[in-house]
Amino acid sequence: MARLQTAVAGLGRMGKRHALHFAEQTPRAQLVAVSSPDESELEWARRRLGPLGVTVYKNYDDMLKHEGLQAVVVASATAVHAEQTVKAIEKDLHVLCEKPLSTSIEISQSVLDAANRKPHLKVLCGFSRRFDASYRDAFAKTQAGTIGRPSVLRSQTCDKLDPSGFFVAYAQFSGGIFVDCSIHDIDLTLWFYGSEAKVKSVSAVGITAVEPDLRQFNDRDNAVGLVEFHDGRIAYFYASRMMAAGQEDSTEIIGTKGKLTVNTQPAMNLVNIYESSGVRRELPQHYFDRFREAFVTEAREFTDSCLDDTPVPLRLEDAVQAIRIGHALQEALIGEKKIFFDQTGKRIEKAAL
Amino acid sequence: MARLQTAVAGLGRMGKRHALHFAEQTPRAQLVAVSSPDESELEWARRRLGPLGVTVYKNYDDMLKHEGLQAVVVASATAVHAEQTVKAIEKDLHVLCEKPLSTSIEISQSVLDAANRKPHLKVLCGFSRRFDASYRDAFAKTQAGTIGRPSVLRSQTCDKLDPSGFFVAYAQFSGGIFVDCSIHDIDLTLWFYGSEAKVKSVSAVGITAVEPDLRQFNDRDNAVGLVEFHDGRIAYFYASRMMAAGQEDSTEIIGTKGKLTVNTQPAMNLVNIYESSGVRRELPQHYFDRFREAFVTEAREFTDSCLDDTPVPLRLEDAVQAIRIGHALQEALIGEKKIFFDQTGKRIEKAAL
Amino acid sequence: MARLQTAVAGLGRMGKRHALHFAEQTPRAQLVAVSSPDESELEWARRRLGPLGVTVYKNYDDMLKHEGLQAVVVASATAVHAEQTVKAIEKDLHVLCEKPLSTSIEISQSVLDAANRKPHLKVLCGFSRRFDASYRDAFAKTQAGTIGRPSVLRSQTCDKLDPSGFFVAYAQFSGGIFVDCSIHDIDLTLWFYGSEAKVKSVSAVGITAVEPDLRQFNDRDNAVGLVEFHDGRIAYFYASRMMAAGQEDSTEIIGTKGKLTVNTQPAMNLVNIYESSGVRRELPQHYFDRFREAFVTEAREFTDSCLDDTPVPLRLEDAVQAIRIGHALQEALIGEKKIFFDQTGKRIEKAAL
Amino acid sequence: MARLQTAVAGLGRMGKRHALHFAEQTPRAQLVAVSSPDESELEWARRRLGPLGVTVYKNYDDMLKHEGLQAVVVASATAVHAEQTVKAIEKDLHVLCEKPLSTSIEISQSVLDAANRKPHLKVLCGFSRRFDASYRDAFAKTQAGTIGRPSVLRSQTCDKLDPSGFFVAYAQFSGGIFVDCSIHDIDLTLWFYGSEAKVKSVSAVGITAVEPDLRQFNDRDNAVGLVEFHDGRIAYFYASRMMAAGQEDSTEIIGTKGKLTVNTQPAMNLVNIYESSGVRRELPQHYFDRFREAFVTEAREFTDSCLDDTPVPLRLEDAVQAIRIGHALQEALIGEKKIFFDQTGKRIEKAAL
Repeated sequence: MARLQTAVAGLGRMGKRHALHFAEQTPRAQLVAVSSPDESELEWARRRLGPLGVTVYKNYDDMLKHEGLQAVVVASATAVHAEQTVKAIEKDLHVLCEKPLSTSIEISQSVLDAANRKPHLKVLCGFSRRFDASYRDAFAKTQAGTIGRPSVLRSQTCDKLDPSGFFVAYAQFSGGIFVDCSIHDIDLTLWFYGSEAKVKSVSAVGITAVEPDLRQFNDRDNAVGLVEFHDGRIAYFYASRMMAAGQEDSTEIIGTKGKLTVNTQPAMNLVNIYESSGVRRELPQHYFDRFREAFVTEAREFTDSCLDDTPVPLRLEDAVQAIRIGHALQEALIGEKKIFFDQTGKRIEKAAL
Repeated sequence: MARLQTAVAGLGRMGKRHALHFAEQTPRAQLVAVSSPDESELEWARRRLGPLGVTVYKNYDDMLKHEGLQAVVVASATAVHAEQTVKAIEKDLHVLCEKPLSTSIEISQSVLDAANRKPHLKVLCGFSRRFDASYRDAFAKTQAGTIGRPSVLRSQTCDKLDPSGFFVAYAQFSGGIFVDCSIHDIDLTLWFYGSEAKVKSVSAVGITAVEPDLRQFNDRDNAVGLVEFHDGRIAYFYASRMMAAGQEDSTEIIGTKGKLTVNTQPAMNLVNIYESSGVRRELPQHYFDRFREAFVTEAREFTDSCLDDTPVPLRLEDAVQAIRIGHALQEALIGEKKIFFDQTGKRIEKAAL
Repeated sequence: MARLQTAVAGLGRMGKRHALHFAEQTPRAQLVAVSSPDESELEWARRRLGPLGVTVYKNYDDMLKHEGLQAVVVASATAVHAEQTVKAIEKDLHVLCEKPLSTSIEISQSVLDAANRKPHLKVLCGFSRRFDASYRDAFAKTQAGTIGRPSVLRSQTCDKLDPSGFFVAYAQFSGGIFVDCSIHDIDLTLWFYGSEAKVKSVSAVGITAVEPDLRQFNDRDNAVGLVEFHDGRIAYFYASRMMAAGQEDSTEIIGTKGKLTVNTQPAMNLVNIYESSGVRRELPQHYFDRFREAFVTEAREFTDSCLDDTPVPLRLEDAVQAIRIGHALQEALIGEKKIFFDQTGKRIEKAAL
Repeated sequence: MARLQTAVAGLGRMGKRHALHFAEQTPRAQLVAVSSPDESELEWARRRLGPLGVTVYKNYDDMLKHEGLQAVVVASATAVHAEQTVKAIEKDLHVLCEKPLSTSIEISQSVLDAANRKPHLKVLCGFSRRFDASYRDAFAKTQAGTIGRPSVLRSQTCDKLDPSGFFVAYAQFSGGIFVDCSIHDIDLTLWFYGSEAKVKSVSAVGITAVEPDLRQFNDRDNAVGLVEFHDGRIAYFYASRMMAAGQEDSTEIIGTKGKLTVNTQPAMNLVNIYESSGVRRELPQHYFDRFREAFVTEAREFTDSCLDDTPVPLRLEDAVQAIRIGHALQEALIGEKKIFFDQTGKRIEKAAL
């Protein structure tokens, strides 16, 4: 049985997981190489992946020349996502790139352009929620007409409070809270409403409730955004870095005949604790705790798509469109204004009434 | 508009509530008198009820002679429930008697006999759960066939842990944990299965996990009982004095086509608290917190029944039968044996197979 | 015991309930009179309230002259709320006025002015959620510091889908979805953030997903609004006429240290139904099903406030301010623009950055 | 990296899953062989496992001779569990045997004896719940003292209603509902109470609510059992073949200071469906849907234990003791009696009081 010869670039928190998913949980793939510029990450790879026969590279370009390589997972720092993805495409390799392609619209578009020049390659941007069993069930029910026409979508991506200052340091590179967090909710919206949904307006507000230093990077720790579509639908998003109990990523899809909710009662597992202060349950602490299985499914389906030459589960165009909407929300937030677009996506000064 | 002239005997925790329910929340009733042998309770009555025109008696028999009196609520100590109820019946007064009629089967039967001699009187034993909106909804759905034939019933009456020693002191008079707590669950079973359900066998086990001193009164702080009926149904009950979080009274009615649950996710109100240890909700601390509205409904429906000469909402026979089953469970618990009955309710040495 | 001599004006759905609450569930009040211009409502009053000794008036002004009258509940059509309230104030009567005072800011302000001229009178605008036990528990916990500084508030008032066309007919008088529905959520925000919170900006979007005819009255059937406050807090609201399962009024208060939710898992009662399609629970169908007890508490506390000369539970200023914010949201919705205010509440063309 | 050379015997529903778990989800194991007497199962194996290099045997004994084989998973019919396990032990192979070892106490004991003669071998009976993340969390919290001393345990194993007659056919071989279903709950009890907990008495009742034909095999479709332990603890179990909504396996562990629940609000995933009849969620339909991940963890930990020579996660003695208790419950159920044991496990006629 031929297995997809795969390499992983970047071995930070997510890179390590992708490497292990391809090495140990994706039967049709074989992890053959990894790369990282970081010595401690390389040390981890030699110890953990070396015994599995994985070659460890310090240099990404060297890794691309690995004999027989067919696919690359780009899990490095966001700043090099696009460059590494394009290089891999140019080497005729399939690519699974962690989200976002880039925090820049233009650079994201350039990745799409590169991919479009090689239509035989599979290029997937890893929006993990698309691979989650609950979201898929909600999507299937929506497609089956259970809720009529989806018309209002509420979605939030909210991280656990981290008093270490991490989020401030991270804000320099994240593209802002809408581009970093709400991008998932935007992608869900494009999925449930269809890629043909055209944005009519965006507006947003935000605050720095716990991390005033975020302002120096034009970022906020809590933000709410509204998106209006030309076909008479709306979506609204909440992103936060301030959840006390844990990761809270939840979604409501409200249709003309019913409503579906995903994870509006978050829980780490099936245990409830009855004690003198009441009944308590614990929450996932990090998005990976919540989406662990989705990442494995993503690895398997990307592999299937490459080996079987079937379409990747989500269009790369959507990943670029999500960045566009995230940028518009971020601009509305920082610039304190409502922004309008015509049906072709062109920005206009005032909405057509 | 004629209002039911009502008196309340006993002004302990429940008596006070009954008095206020009839004085202030039962439009068709008028509270005209109360009695208590306890001076501090009388003092409360003079202060709180005096301004409402309520006459305060130290002596129950005197109160029964109150001009124009039509109905009595017996909320005194369990030991005098039966005696006071019978006296009121003999004075041609309607009676709402707190549960149980007595901890003794024979005395309970004597109340029923007295009531049967005056069929024009309304005599109601106050099993509050029969007046609870959720239990009534479950009963209505059962009657409507939603779950097919109810065949297995699980029910529990579990009190909050009280380290004060109250439960030990109380055990001298309570009749035991099955007679005191599970009596509610037994009554629910008679309601959902129908009064014609005949007990075939009972068995039970119990422990003293936190209150070893209960053993001197032949009682336990946790007990589980099984009841088998001749018509092929079973019920099982859990009673406890050891709940950390609060009162936990819940029921499952399992039928051949579905299941109904009542209060299997207890909560004091609609608030959830998200904090660093997880998501928490508080619980009712006492059965009155849980059944507050049911007691008011009970007062109103008893009043309606007296004024309109309609049947009381629950048969007094069931109240006596509940005591019988409670006693059998208590004997099975303490005597460590399984007890069998024939179809006529006669005890037999071995089940007819 | 002196009881507050109370009259109710208007005997529609809410008026009937107010009348019964004051007649039968408010021990310190006595319902002495009611009025309605509608013959069928008067007929109901004669039959249901007549036996309780209540005088029935066809004319509001006549009722105000009722001997000994001390307080009036204004539960008539919104269009006459203000006029009737002011008339009662001028007659030196306490007033409990159903929300809103008026759909007009100016008229609402005129009621406040009238009340301010008679500081010895109690004038309460009936925002029922302030009297709900769960909201009060959440407020008490917020005051106690459980969640740190409340910084983001999400709240929704969502009605059950009503295909009868009722909402279209109603839209002519309702003031629009933000003034009619979200007014409750705005009031909650003023409660939790404090009356001193000053609005910095509002924005809003809306659609007509099921009732396109609402557009002729400048209304929508689903709308989302954002409110930003000068002190670094935000609130966002969702209002809908399209809920399939029932009334869904829920709130999240998100603070710097924790979060409180109210009714994010709505349920009619404590019953769950297990059947072949899964586990199901039913929902309240109408806001009165959800807030039944709150209306009774409102009646009692208004009565206490009048008899004991204590402050009413919510400032009339807040009721006027809620209308102002509702209007601004409605204008942002229909005018498709973001609207800014300075610290004094004056509208400005562009936010001070 | 050396991988555990593993074979799977039996390729029915569970056998197929075990085979795939060892082939594709257990990095340290290699599936090298499978066997089945069933031609259609062999055909599946050739098609699905052949490409992975797995040798397919029609005969179990032949498979045991597979070159380099180190471990066997026995997933065949219950009737041959013990025989195949003993044969593997005698060939010096590690064994993971599906539960139960046998429906006979004596045969189960003979497996334990065989294992005890080869203490260097790992012999694990696959009680999947011990590998479930939620049960493990509950166990860890219990060990940490969160609930004080565990004193009452309620646990149920309830299958979805299957009107096909499957359960009747199955009853011939299952050992009865307590041995087949409650064995899991008994095992959980031994885990949480400790293997040293000695049974004092058992009692049980049961009915045939939907499958009267079960009686010909001395079985029931609903049964409740009570187990009392000599150290002052109790456990009670409910087993059913009649759940309308799906698989319902839930547990409560009640201690002197608190309570833990596992899966008392079952759900298939994180989706809730709001529709005109209320809010609904779907349930797992089969135990495998619920315990999917636990089976994978079981495969991995068995493999680790074999390769690293560490103790298996659950003592084989417990698996035999669980059968003993299941048998006693089944006898109490069918024989309509309470059964007593002394501290040494010897059956006695009457409990020592």
